[in-house]
Amino acid sequence: MRVLGIDPGSRHTGYGVVENDGKRLVPVLYGSLSLPASMGLPMRLGSIFTEIRRLIEEARPTEMAVEAVFVARNARSALILGHARGAAMAAGIHGGLQVFEYSALEIKQAVVGYGKAEKGQVAHMVRLLLGLHDLQDPHAADALAAAVCHIHARSFHTRCSLAQRL
Amino acid sequence: MRVLGIDPGSRHTGYGVVENDGKRLVPVLYGSLSLPASMGLPMRLGSIFTEIRRLIEEARPTEMAVEAVFVARNARSALILGHARGAAMAAGIHGGLQVFEYSALEIKQAVVGYGKAEKGQVAHMVRLLLGLHDLQDPHAADALAAAVCHIHARSFHTRCSLAQRL
Repeated sequence: MRVLGIDPGSRHTGYGVVENDGKRLVPVLYGSLSLPASMGLPMRLGSIFTEIRRLIEEARPTEMAVEAVFVARNARSALILGHARGAAMAAGIHGGLQVFEYSALEIKQAVVGYGKAEKGQVAHMVRLLLGLHDLQDPHAADALAAAVCHIHARSFHTRCSLAQRL
Repeated sequence: MRVLGIDPGSRHTGYGVVENDGKRLVPVLYGSLSLPASMGLPMRLGSIFTEIRRLIEEARPTEMAVEAVFVARNARSALILGHARGAAMAAGIHGGLQVFEYSALEIKQAVVGYGKAEKGQVAHMVRLLLGLHDLQDPHAADALAAAVCHIHARSFHTRCSLAQRL
């Protein structure tokens, strides 16, 4: 299973592709796309879409994981964040991926084992789990965490299905 | 000039293409796309994107006009609306269009001549301006109003530029 994790934002969008070869988690590629505010929102959304479509062509993931957002500082910031997530999710569907959303709590639980973990702990565990000791980019770390969470959720679901069949 | 107006929403997205042949406004096509809530947000965003790309291929507009949103009932509805607008605007940019945003006030001012006009008055004026006496769909009417507003804004801008050169 190869999963594209995305941490979308109107200024910075993190991405990370993680492969689960059945034994361990392998990072395929990761990084983040930053866009200047001077670019204007429509052009930034177009760039987010195009970049994610390019990543899908390059890394060939089959599923996409995005952190679900339930709260925002205010309606204005929620609206802008929504635009970036909409462009990112449309790119995933357009690229033929199944798109899954996970809450911050689910991601922290999957990566750190504790739903109220600090952001720094999540990045630390992503580095350990994927052997990325030099990972600094916080947006890429959040994207990779979403991908790891999805792989855990899928493995758990498969194990449950097997257990039911036994 | 041929303009695609879009009224994006996560459940109903209105669209309308208007041509300005230099003498009058001609509606090219219009309608709305409705998607069931049961479909899930990612799939709905993918459908909005695909439908708008298809419309661009079919009607060949060169510019896109969308109503800008500054307020929303709450952060949750702003976030969802943002997703739909993000997918729609990404489709416009991906289709090679220039994307323009207009406030509800600007659209009402352009179509009705009064920024505080009721929604029904806007639809009424859209019917008169475009000769669409049987137009019922409120989402298509809002999309057509955005397109008409953009054509007015562009014509005004051109007239100002000409005046400066004389």
